[in-house]
Amino acid sequence: MSESKGSTRRSFLTGTLAAGGTLAAASVAKAAGGDPAILNVQPWANELGDGVDAHPYGMPTRYESKVIRRNVPWLTADPVSSINFTPLHDLDGIITPNGLAFERHHAGSIAIPPHKYRLMINGLVDQPLVFTLEDLKRFPRYNKVYFLECAANSGMEWRGPQLNGVQFTHGMIHNVMYTGVMLRDILAEAGVKTEGKWLLAEGGDAAGMSRSIPMEKALDDCMIAFKMNGEALRAENGYPARLVVPGWEGNMWVKWIRRLEVGDQPWEQREETSKYTDLLANGVARRFTWQMDAKSVITNPSPQAPITHGKGRTVITGIAWTGNGVISGVDVTLDGGINWHKARIDGSSLDKSMHRFYYEFDWDGKPLLLQSRAHDTTGYVQPTKDQLRAIRGTNSIYHNNGIQTWAVNSEGEAENVEIS
Amino acid sequence: MSESKGSTRRSFLTGTLAAGGTLAAASVAKAAGGDPAILNVQPWANELGDGVDAHPYGMPTRYESKVIRRNVPWLTADPVSSINFTPLHDLDGIITPNGLAFERHHAGSIAIPPHKYRLMINGLVDQPLVFTLEDLKRFPRYNKVYFLECAANSGMEWRGPQLNGVQFTHGMIHNVMYTGVMLRDILAEAGVKTEGKWLLAEGGDAAGMSRSIPMEKALDDCMIAFKMNGEALRAENGYPARLVVPGWEGNMWVKWIRRLEVGDQPWEQREETSKYTDLLANGVARRFTWQMDAKSVITNPSPQAPITHGKGRTVITGIAWTGNGVISGVDVTLDGGINWHKARIDGSSLDKSMHRFYYEFDWDGKPLLLQSRAHDTTGYVQPTKDQLRAIRGTNSIYHNNGIQTWAVNSEGEAENVEIS
Repeated sequence: MSESKGSTRRSFLTGTLAAGGTLAAASVAKAAGGDPAILNVQPWANELGDGVDAHPYGMPTRYESKVIRRNVPWLTADPVSSINFTPLHDLDGIITPNGLAFERHHAGSIAIPPHKYRLMINGLVDQPLVFTLEDLKRFPRYNKVYFLECAANSGMEWRGPQLNGVQFTHGMIHNVMYTGVMLRDILAEAGVKTEGKWLLAEGGDAAGMSRSIPMEKALDDCMIAFKMNGEALRAENGYPARLVVPGWEGNMWVKWIRRLEVGDQPWEQREETSKYTDLLANGVARRFTWQMDAKSVITNPSPQAPITHGKGRTVITGIAWTGNGVISGVDVTLDGGINWHKARIDGSSLDKSMHRFYYEFDWDGKPLLLQSRAHDTTGYVQPTKDQLRAIRGTNSIYHNNGIQTWAVNSEGEAENVEIS
Repeated sequence: MSESKGSTRRSFLTGTLAAGGTLAAASVAKAAGGDPAILNVQPWANELGDGVDAHPYGMPTRYESKVIRRNVPWLTADPVSSINFTPLHDLDGIITPNGLAFERHHAGSIAIPPHKYRLMINGLVDQPLVFTLEDLKRFPRYNKVYFLECAANSGMEWRGPQLNGVQFTHGMIHNVMYTGVMLRDILAEAGVKTEGKWLLAEGGDAAGMSRSIPMEKALDDCMIAFKMNGEALRAENGYPARLVVPGWEGNMWVKWIRRLEVGDQPWEQREETSKYTDLLANGVARRFTWQMDAKSVITNPSPQAPITHGKGRTVITGIAWTGNGVISGVDVTLDGGINWHKARIDGSSLDKSMHRFYYEFDWDGKPLLLQSRAHDTTGYVQPTKDQLRAIRGTNSIYHNNGIQTWAVNSEGEAENVEIS
């Protein structure tokens, strides 16, 4: 079929494939009239659907019932001390819906009646105080989209490919709009004494999760949040209030926050000594490795989300983030790092927030070795796993921000591999 | 208690209240030690919570069970042709969670199996085409946070205060991150002929919702979206694919989109003649009033969300939006328009997206007449309802972007009123 004069037709999808000038679009979209699915009245146009009373709090359609958080049973001792992994391969954009948001709890997800919630401030302050939830909501509120990544994200991959799915290798992360109040405003109400240089944040669950936070960070951008993506925090994300520690490891974002103690030195709690430290090859442990460095991963295709359309125009997409500000660029390679291509970052590029990237190309159906590599505005470049191991040895669990490789075969199936 | 030297205490909450220099904080937060709720181990710290297996797709805590969409039974004939209103008074920030997102359907919310979904393009094109959902996902994807407001939002208020709650007066709106492909890329694949100046968008439900859209808009920023806030569209929001028409009335954002026909003139469909036109006092009807003009409303306090903390520091918050770009400012009045104060806009200020504003003040416990007034970057100022009536008479339903008034009494209760 020849194009009419003045047409804007440009065969976007297949333009670069149609070497012989054939009707390129046929490979991805059928000519209308040739597709029986469109010719008859579709069954769902022949009957009434659900009424509004079916959706007071809406849920996903049954066709998306496999889009769920998953855990890795062998990873932790018990479901009440475990991890809900975000299904990154099912998502797009930069917002994680609340029902699919990563969370990790140490003594189960507890239910705190909001009217019984209290937040205490004590220690090196002029006036120890106890706030109700309503008190907190009387401070000026702020809204920030931040990523929350567990320090152990990708930790199981430290010594080599282990889990065959981006949900498991990289799913200890979520990215939501948090609404809350600035920690500096709360602390100012109590009055931090000059010698108050550290803050202990303590959670209200039976695990008593507690971490030491330097006062400089607490007074900078930390928040007490009570909403995520517009609505109240979900129970498993700390309802009714949690700490937000932008760009730093998720363990410090204490959930069900019950107490803030001001002190003059760190407390050396379990979660910053026995846990959340990095044992180097020489037996020395790095500690207070708070910041999450620049990292990225391709979410599609990936082991849980193969290419199913065969050759031709293919969209690669993934996410990138840095605790050090903003992602300045992401590179994608199709051949294990021989050639790198600049990916397109789309959607808002926000401080300490997930970024979404795309790379569109024409797949010839041959095997691929896919990787992505993030850069942040400080000039930092996401390292390879071997580069990390060269510095930190092989004992580490935390802060694995190494480059991930997916091997895609000619059937479009992807596998978690590592290349040197 | 005197403040220690070097203290950063500044009694934010109550600094402006403590005329006599008394312990001001006591009015909002109790001194620690005086609050029995914090002294003992709280019951939820004495037991284990839910395990991860309880949350594969997470739901709100039971303490938030009243945070739901609601409908107005008398407004439409039947639940299958009705409206789910967003509970704006329960939300903060600018993201509407999917389970609470406004939607209106005309023949029920239908369930389309994604593998059976088809989108046809026909009419004045070089090559009529039919796309599968997978075909659509092979075009370059984009992510945009847009508000979707029904043209009838606040329509029931045209002739005076009618519904006592911001959920009902203003809840025909949502604001989510849409992920999809550009309509211009889809249309280019079929090749729009030079004489193709209009597009008919037709929905796949039994209502066959259809609207005429000028080609200029279609080629500008319209999208076919398949995700909202990261996950697949909810059924009631058009799963698996809907039209996105940024800044224009929600009725045009055809859900379950099944067909796009290119033509040389508008189709004069039911929903752009009998409905979605504005009957003026002289009997002439305005039509093709697509753009949603600048509008704002205070969401808290409001009839469904009274002030419950008594006098003192009070946070007023609300939302503003414009189909004409970005909100440049919001004013708030406490006294029915005698004095206006500049509100603080917080969170991202995005094109054709909801904006969140705050105004913090010290309430003396006397009655208030609260209003908000939005400005956009074109210089447009949100009008009063009387200004709208002066131009359009009293027959209108659609495009009521007039200033809303809440009367707050000394108990903190708010009521929908109108003042001249």
